[in-house]
Amino acid sequence: MNSKIKWLKEKIRGLNMQGMIVSNPVNVEYLTGIKAEGVLLITRKENYYITDSRYLEEVQSILTIDDEIIVCNAADITDYEYENFFSFCENVGFEENYITYATYKKYMQRYKANNLEETEGILEKQRMIKDETELEYLKKACSLTDSCFSHLINYIKIGMTEKEVAREIENYFFENGADGLSFETIVASGKNSSKPHAKATDKKIEAGDPITIDFGCKYKGYCSDMTRTIFAGFVPEKIKPVYDLVLKNQIQTLKEMKEGSEIRILTRNVDNDFKLHGYSLVHSLGHGVGLEIHEQPVLSLKNDSTLKANMVITNEPGIYIPGEFGVRIEDTLQITKSGCINLTKSDKNYIIVDKLERENIKS
Amino acid sequence: MNSKIKWLKEKIRGLNMQGMIVSNPVNVEYLTGIKAEGVLLITRKENYYITDSRYLEEVQSILTIDDEIIVCNAADITDYEYENFFSFCENVGFEENYITYATYKKYMQRYKANNLEETEGILEKQRMIKDETELEYLKKACSLTDSCFSHLINYIKIGMTEKEVAREIENYFFENGADGLSFETIVASGKNSSKPHAKATDKKIEAGDPITIDFGCKYKGYCSDMTRTIFAGFVPEKIKPVYDLVLKNQIQTLKEMKEGSEIRILTRNVDNDFKLHGYSLVHSLGHGVGLEIHEQPVLSLKNDSTLKANMVITNEPGIYIPGEFGVRIEDTLQITKSGCINLTKSDKNYIIVDKLERENIKS
Repeated sequence: MNSKIKWLKEKIRGLNMQGMIVSNPVNVEYLTGIKAEGVLLITRKENYYITDSRYLEEVQSILTIDDEIIVCNAADITDYEYENFFSFCENVGFEENYITYATYKKYMQRYKANNLEETEGILEKQRMIKDETELEYLKKACSLTDSCFSHLINYIKIGMTEKEVAREIENYFFENGADGLSFETIVASGKNSSKPHAKATDKKIEAGDPITIDFGCKYKGYCSDMTRTIFAGFVPEKIKPVYDLVLKNQIQTLKEMKEGSEIRILTRNVDNDFKLHGYSLVHSLGHGVGLEIHEQPVLSLKNDSTLKANMVITNEPGIYIPGEFGVRIEDTLQITKSGCINLTKSDKNYIIVDKLERENIKS
Repeated sequence: MNSKIKWLKEKIRGLNMQGMIVSNPVNVEYLTGIKAEGVLLITRKENYYITDSRYLEEVQSILTIDDEIIVCNAADITDYEYENFFSFCENVGFEENYITYATYKKYMQRYKANNLEETEGILEKQRMIKDETELEYLKKACSLTDSCFSHLINYIKIGMTEKEVAREIENYFFENGADGLSFETIVASGKNSSKPHAKATDKKIEAGDPITIDFGCKYKGYCSDMTRTIFAGFVPEKIKPVYDLVLKNQIQTLKEMKEGSEIRILTRNVDNDFKLHGYSLVHSLGHGVGLEIHEQPVLSLKNDSTLKANMVITNEPGIYIPGEFGVRIEDTLQITKSGCINLTKSDKNYIIVDKLERENIKS
């Protein structure tokens, strides 16, 4: 049996559950490699993947005999068979953070389980710690992101629109072996950079604009995530102290990140230093990265857990001055026992694209 | 007050609900134009949109005074305020098809509502019938899709990969004013076309390949959806009868679609005709299209409702012969009182790209 499913079987047994319904497609992909619409049933005896005719051929082609998964077409399963999957099971786990209230009610009726039990995100928690293969894919995605950034520095010119830059990022990833984007690329220039969650617009990049570029790609399903705030033409004096403050905190956090670090304290340190200067940390300090761009853990003041070796997370402090500008600097990194390893390695000092001669600067 | 929220307030009053929690971001976008993460609360007096600091500036910039929506930062709302939103409400509606079981439990605790009542998809049902503005955006998205297809016919050459064709589609939409893709473009050539839900791969297009292209774009948030199965070099004789059968049924269905048509019967007619020839309809006959690529209604044997004027739906019969080939032909269309209007208008006869001279055909 594949090792992840074996782990899951043991885990739920320890929780006094005799079966589990895995509905979240990302968790199904994590356990089996299957990317489709369907439900994975872990039962006392066999494991079943129930899908529909659209995916049957594809799913069959992905699985090997070692997976020990029986693939079924939902259209062929009778009510009686549904009731039998979990017969003699006292507790059957379900994903309360994924399935809707309506689906919960449907499952209750369909499976006639004695008790559907909340699994409290066991799979999402397990997914926080990456294995060797996952780390390899994440490193590759991050390295593609670094090389894309190197390309961008020479590509971006004053007068280009944010959308053109975002498009170039997509083209670069496409031409260099990525599966696709981790998320919709953010290119926010000038005032637009003051929105933490801006989208690329038709605004043209002007001399003196800060440009926040938040982007990443997927490699074999695994995501990268990096942000740099760079400058068009020159670095305006008023932005420098904010940039320096963000960068100082980003680097300080990197130094503090290792197995055992308290997430709440890491976040509070940054927020406190920002407040000392009249700003504050308006979003979380970071998040886990894996098959999804946002995974556990969330690095926020509310999280009272600690970092663990082989978590892959982001470190992304930012300061936003509404209507003026914003600065965010973000890396994806791997936690180790003694520290952390930056997987994104691009320069974080002032980067000026399409640099202007001194006499052309009006700041 | 904006007319859609006014409609919703009257609707829930008729259902003996005194408030509603709108959590599905697509429903929030439909009602308010807001594209963000947050929750819309329809209460006895005011309407509130609760979001976080990342979106505050953007959301404020979208809303007008006519929207009568108070925007709040979740971080500033106390437990006491949460409890007061729905005080003196007997029943408060929630979206049982969207919120998770865990969120349902959180809402129960947070809002201290007397009773959280399932709204049975009232918003999704209302979204089935498009207004004038929505129809305008859908028409524009479909017209961009037609012009993209015209471009493709001249662009595709034998030897190109499926991914290159998919990329050209994205580039075309990007350069011609679309917001983005409706969904990940399907380009499935040769044997790959036998998978109804194939993705574009690195396979090169060969002479004699059928190529199923299923694609669409978004315009002002609204989606288009079209499929054509075209041919590289020449049309293999063995595919012709299957193509003709799919096309005959696609056209026949278009003739039968109008306000009052029974969805089940439309679907059964196609399935019956396919079975008469030894095939069957393995997926639904179509689906609603709007802010989401897949909306209600689903055109399947299980749906016992009828079509209504100003629904926008797809008509997409397909036949798939595992390991050999597949054919699917799909239009997006608007239902009217007397019939339907095709919004995608591309040719459906045999289309041959990179046509070979007769002496080069080995079929």
